[in-house]
Amino acid sequence: MTALKSCCPMYPANLEWMKKQRERYGQLLAWECGEAVLEMCRIKEKQQAGEKAAEYVRDGMVVGLGTGSTVFYTIRKIVELVKNGMKIQGVSTSKSTTELAGSLGIELVSINDVETIDLTIDGADEIDQKLNGIKGGGGALFFEKVVAYASAKVIWVVDAGKMAPKLGGVPVPVEVSPFGYRQVYKRLSVEGLNPVMRLESGQPFRTDSDHYILDLYPDNLDHPGELGAWLKEIPGVIEHGLFIDCAAEVLVGRGDSVVSVLR
Amino acid sequence: MTALKSCCPMYPANLEWMKKQRERYGQLLAWECGEAVLEMCRIKEKQQAGEKAAEYVRDGMVVGLGTGSTVFYTIRKIVELVKNGMKIQGVSTSKSTTELAGSLGIELVSINDVETIDLTIDGADEIDQKLNGIKGGGGALFFEKVVAYASAKVIWVVDAGKMAPKLGGVPVPVEVSPFGYRQVYKRLSVEGLNPVMRLESGQPFRTDSDHYILDLYPDNLDHPGELGAWLKEIPGVIEHGLFIDCAAEVLVGRGDSVVSVLR
Repeated sequence: MTALKSCCPMYPANLEWMKKQRERYGQLLAWECGEAVLEMCRIKEKQQAGEKAAEYVRDGMVVGLGTGSTVFYTIRKIVELVKNGMKIQGVSTSKSTTELAGSLGIELVSINDVETIDLTIDGADEIDQKLNGIKGGGGALFFEKVVAYASAKVIWVVDAGKMAPKLGGVPVPVEVSPFGYRQVYKRLSVEGLNPVMRLESGQPFRTDSDHYILDLYPDNLDHPGELGAWLKEIPGVIEHGLFIDCAAEVLVGRGDSVVSVLR
Repeated sequence: MTALKSCCPMYPANLEWMKKQRERYGQLLAWECGEAVLEMCRIKEKQQAGEKAAEYVRDGMVVGLGTGSTVFYTIRKIVELVKNGMKIQGVSTSKSTTELAGSLGIELVSINDVETIDLTIDGADEIDQKLNGIKGGGGALFFEKVVAYASAKVIWVVDAGKMAPKLGGVPVPVEVSPFGYRQVYKRLSVEGLNPVMRLESGQPFRTDSDHYILDLYPDNLDHPGELGAWLKEIPGVIEHGLFIDCAAEVLVGRGDSVVSVLR
């Protein structure tokens, strides 16, 4: 862990390391090398945060299972708990999580068949100091939000790179109906939100409920709550990736530790 | 027309007629007879209002074509105009309207392929004095709202029975995602909105975009705009049937005339 931290260029103390790499391998190779190490650090942080969250799961709970590369580690850890005799029911937020958790042996139930969800653990793309977040980079924001708002408690798990003083470092995904999406696109353009149609293999990306996603690049995101409410009011907008007052706690993998941030 | 009006039990002047029918045929038969005549009056009013709206259509327009039994007459009239040489493009709001208008020879274009919609003509289930309305009895509210909000002008066509001092005489339809609809149902129940799952042949009714509909029976509907905004914010709610500040004009079939009401 310490070795990892000491080689990780994301820490200011490691700028010296970056400088040495540049001298040794030239600019490009150093950059590539640095990126690879950075990614390794991120993965380690995701793993630590993801696994830590599994400690919040108690016997008998209905647990909302988020989607993405950090929750992957939570799910893997929950599988261990289940194998050791803990009984839980999972509510999935996406087809990919259904496949993953189902194949690993977690009992899954439909969100329509549970009274309440005791705890939901999910990732996020960016989180500000008030613990508001942007989600939807993976395209599961709609089901994730439905599950989150049916949950007694929501915990987000992220690597340190996801924490920001304010939101705006990643695009804001908006899930839209294929019927009329170009009218929505125009409205968002007029408002200066710079929408970009999300593509996959050259075709419009399709969410699990067969909608499209427009990624917004607003000039500023000073009032994410207001923007979110305005977006949702537009006919044709199914949901947006601004999650306001949602997570009660964020577990941040930072170097070789996990920091808990409470709202 | 006059004959129809004179036999129509919906006019206070015809209470005498109802009384005579009761004396003649007994209570039940008189009721059935009255209902049948009332329905005839409604149909005539729908036809008059629907056909009148076609007069607003101009050569070269892109026209939003609503859904339902009153717009049926508009569409039929537009077909006549087209046969007489008028060129228009129609934007449909439902599969049923696509079938109807398409089969009758109106050129249809996708809402995604038009810059703007010049005029949309649609029906409504109930309209108050501010021209706010409840729509969605037929289940097409989502596409109808998307089309309406992309339109430069919206006209509603209704029979006189649809006009009310205030909204609340018909349920408020809410289109919801099958994923999580029971969580939405619970939330609406807690708020005293008395949701009822819409069924068709014993199964959940499916909209054109494969969602469900919950029909709300709120105890009061004094602030339809606030209720609508609150409903749309709920994750899992796709759209609702409260159309606020939408129609610029309503054409009301009343007896043997059509009254225009402007917002």
